Amino acid sequence: MRKKPEILGRKLGLEFQDSALFTMALTHRSATARNNERLEFLGDAVLGFVIAQQLYEQFPEASEGVLSRLRAGLVNQQSLAALARKLDLGNYLLLGSGELKSGGYRRDSILSDALEAIMGAIVLDQGVEACRQWILNLFAEDLAALTLDNWRKDPKTQLQELMQSRQLELPEYTLVSLSGQNHEQLFKVQCRVAMLEQPCFGSGTSRKKAEQAAAEQALAALHKEQA
Amino acid sequence: MRKKPEILGRKLGLEFQDSALFTMALTHRSATARNNERLEFLGDAVLGFVIAQQLYEQFPEASEGVLSRLRAGLVNQQSLAALARKLDLGNYLLLGSGELKSGGYRRDSILSDALEAIMGAIVLDQGVEACRQWILNLFAEDLAALTLDNWRKDPKTQLQELMQSRQLELPEYTLVSLSGQNHEQLFKVQCRVAMLEQPCFGSGTSRKKAEQAAAEQALAALHKEQA
Repeated sequence: MRKKPEILGRKLGLEFQDSALFTMALTHRSATARNNERLEFLGDAVLGFVIAQQLYEQFPEASEGVLSRLRAGLVNQQSLAALARKLDLGNYLLLGSGELKSGGYRRDSILSDALEAIMGAIVLDQGVEACRQWILNLFAEDLAALTLDNWRKDPKTQLQELMQSRQLELPEYTLVSLSGQNHEQLFKVQCRVAMLEQPCFGSGTSRKKAEQAAAEQALAALHKEQA
Repeated sequence: MRKKPEILGRKLGLEFQDSALFTMALTHRSATARNNERLEFLGDAVLGFVIAQQLYEQFPEASEGVLSRLRAGLVNQQSLAALARKLDLGNYLLLGSGELKSGGYRRDSILSDALEAIMGAIVLDQGVEACRQWILNLFAEDLAALTLDNWRKDPKTQLQELMQSRQLELPEYTLVSLSGQNHEQLFKVQCRVAMLEQPCFGSGTSRKKAEQAAAEQALAALHKEQA
């Protein structure tokens, strides 16, 4: 099952000064205490930043909300796991025996965490610019395929159009709670969709924002069901 | 009300090649379409990354969960607004007339967004290393004051101890929904606390994680009530 990290490193174009960092990035918490959880925390942060700056520069006309949705579409557990599979990451992971038996090396969360941990290891070993180049290279195809067309529409509109196209009832939004005072209020909204058993929730500093957030959750849940 | 950006720039030790970026960072969306929302998106990302790496290096013993909580304690709307007030940022903001009348320059969200937008402007104008230095300098006192003591305890334990210390009923956790399949399940838990009117919610890939997330929300809500 498990192949040597050096082979993966060569394939990924990575040469670590501190090869223990790379090994740690490939080590799941089920294997040992010296695992990739801390590196994943760092990798998640550098990935979010690198993609944010790339999108900022690539789409000078996009609003903050659109940039945010573009990033959420590019960087999520599923997309990261798909990239990890392309890199054959599963074959290089160090897992505990339980996870090994239950096929942990195929699991989205484990693959995506390890990929983020590799990014964290690159930042520490080679600095942020090297890491940026590696990330942009990894996402090159996805970034090149991005257009604003699908993202100009806000989630509520997207969800409504989806329901209409399937001739289903329109989503139903209900305010479930309101907390905080004056300008710091937090609205929480529930969104019920014909195709989902469970309602979805969203919060925001206005009812409209909370509804958009709930619609986004519903879109994500529908997307997951189709996958 | 409004003072010249150059004065603030000098005070903050910032010299922009492109001074329009700095002005944009100080411009609220109520003033004009060319405002700081996009820069805030970028600034939020670089801030999250810089603090993540700093904490990673400062606390080699801290788990990913602890690092995450330390960061959430350092970087949030309230803490950023407090830093912005120290810098007298409110007096340099460009606001629309409505926000000006209603005292928008005093509002946490507007102050915190502008501070993040300045960080975004620095990244674009001077690169990530210059931005890192500026951020670490800004947070120097807060970072120096950090210890692991308050963070070793997980949120559920903290919340329970808080209730016990006030001789109140212990928090009550209820599972409100469960979605997804097998290893990708999402648990959603509600936490009821004697001192809060509204329940708090948390989600996670296990019931335990969801409860911790809900406890964290409850701690934040209690913290806010005291403020």
